[in-house]
Amino acid sequence: METLRIALLGAGTVGSGFVKLLDEHRGRFRALGLEPALTGILVRDPRKPRPGWVPEGLLTTDVGRVFEEVDVVVELMGGTERAGRLVLDALGQGLPVITANKALLAERWEELKPHAMEGLLYYEASVMAGTPVIEPLSGVLRGNRTLELHGILNGSTNYVIGRMEDGLGFAEALAEAQAKGFVEEDPFLDVGGIDAAHKLTVLARLAVDPDFSWEEVRAATRGIQELTREQIFEAEAEGKRIRLVASLVPNGGRWKASVRPVKLLADHPLAQAAQARNALLYRGDAVGEVLISGGGAGSAVTASAVVGDLLRMLEGYPGHPPLPEPVPVPDYEPEILEEA
Amino acid sequence: METLRIALLGAGTVGSGFVKLLDEHRGRFRALGLEPALTGILVRDPRKPRPGWVPEGLLTTDVGRVFEEVDVVVELMGGTERAGRLVLDALGQGLPVITANKALLAERWEELKPHAMEGLLYYEASVMAGTPVIEPLSGVLRGNRTLELHGILNGSTNYVIGRMEDGLGFAEALAEAQAKGFVEEDPFLDVGGIDAAHKLTVLARLAVDPDFSWEEVRAATRGIQELTREQIFEAEAEGKRIRLVASLVPNGGRWKASVRPVKLLADHPLAQAAQARNALLYRGDAVGEVLISGGGAGSAVTASAVVGDLLRMLEGYPGHPPLPEPVPVPDYEPEILEEA
Repeated sequence: METLRIALLGAGTVGSGFVKLLDEHRGRFRALGLEPALTGILVRDPRKPRPGWVPEGLLTTDVGRVFEEVDVVVELMGGTERAGRLVLDALGQGLPVITANKALLAERWEELKPHAMEGLLYYEASVMAGTPVIEPLSGVLRGNRTLELHGILNGSTNYVIGRMEDGLGFAEALAEAQAKGFVEEDPFLDVGGIDAAHKLTVLARLAVDPDFSWEEVRAATRGIQELTREQIFEAEAEGKRIRLVASLVPNGGRWKASVRPVKLLADHPLAQAAQARNALLYRGDAVGEVLISGGGAGSAVTASAVVGDLLRMLEGYPGHPPLPEPVPVPDYEPEILEEA
Repeated sequence: METLRIALLGAGTVGSGFVKLLDEHRGRFRALGLEPALTGILVRDPRKPRPGWVPEGLLTTDVGRVFEEVDVVVELMGGTERAGRLVLDALGQGLPVITANKALLAERWEELKPHAMEGLLYYEASVMAGTPVIEPLSGVLRGNRTLELHGILNGSTNYVIGRMEDGLGFAEALAEAQAKGFVEEDPFLDVGGIDAAHKLTVLARLAVDPDFSWEEVRAATRGIQELTREQIFEAEAEGKRIRLVASLVPNGGRWKASVRPVKLLADHPLAQAAQARNALLYRGDAVGEVLISGGGAGSAVTASAVVGDLLRMLEGYPGHPPLPEPVPVPDYEPEILEEA
């Protein structure tokens, strides 16, 4: 049986989840005639405590060792600098890369895009983790002209708002989320809306314009830091719930992206997404309204998308290409969500 | 610019919707360097009245003419006999086939499967129309071991039940659905649960076993013909809604499929699917619970999936392969839905 040589970059929550899931799914790879084998796991500190199933002997700080004789690179280290250098280096060598890194995709797209167009870049895990959205947007939904999309794309914010609904203030709710490991090291990435903005940028390039600008989305992003308990109770009294929503809508002949807290009627499809759940509401001219909801973060939830991408790659599917060209902006009145 | 020669089989609701959408999306094909052209449209009766955009000059009863010099076959005629002969003939010649025909997929799988494994068969449109389920199940969700799935896969039944909730009896509600063209010519296909059973069979082969038996699903199918208004009102009094649900669950070390009316609590994720909307609730060991809902029938809704498949094919994606081998049946207690 042939060996599939996988270089893994990063062994944090998602990276170690991937090591475990890869092992559990060994039979699936064998059914395709391949024995998966990690060539090495690139980490910053090999001595950091990790789950027992992560093979210590493979941990290394030596990039050269990880990249030697490899068939595919799985990037789960995060960040845009070092991860960007490594991913671009691998792609430049013609290696396929599977990544969950939305920051990298959003912010360094100009360098990545040519490789994505060649089909080398797989990134289902980057938005809503293992809940399918990248594949549908780069596939079946292309039979539509996109009219608008709205998403709850950040589970941590959802959790914080949920705890504020339970009566905590913002600071308390955030501290709790931090203690539980539900937010990034830099909590501003979550509560400042940056993570949702990264993800919206990735979706926009699949749905409406292959060159959608990160800076534009960034400039239209407002987080939940200013939210008060009082606002949340007032919304509740009106039968509404506050959620951080990322939207892409036609506006005056242009596509307009935004990330901001909005008040949703409690029976709005997006309002159903509670706790760590994410949701995407897509409207297309042919299909009408599609709602996809599920987990959007976490070790196994995210790793499942990486394994899914890996299996697809082995079955001969190219990665996720952006749209070949921008979609005309429709003459369409989008749903207006009430800003909170 | 190269021409993409498409043979279309059938010009009913979905077929004529495809002709229209193909024309509207001409720019997308040109962006890929291809000019789409129908070589012919196979129909039973060329003189039947059809929408104005269906080019009369292409309508023919001559199979030979349609199949002469063609790059891809789009089968939207339905049925298992003639459609089966034509589809298998095309596949046998090595031609890719895009189809929305769940009856054909369910009932003649033994003949179709080898071609599906070669990547020649695209069938996103066959289940839940343009709402993405085939692609997710044959892609990202394969990073899971499937635990169970439950779906509302037939919109006509949903409509009939909805009208019964409004106070009509079964016969009246069905007559109204027939008058509106919401049910198949043979209404038993819808209200007898056969259509939902066909779709469940297609899903089961993607999610748990490539050889899942149609006969087994057929034998475990019960429709809504016996439902009374009284049952519906009783369910409502208990805060429940009756829906025709297709389920696939582990049961005593085997996968058990069934289609039957069940009582769902009004806040159950599947109960939200009203009118013609369909929904799929998927549970996987890694991703947890995923819900996908949207339109499941109709001209443009279905045609959008056909155009999506066509674009994917042109971008080099193989069709939708079944699982390479059966998934072990998990030791897992599935959700028990209360039969109505």
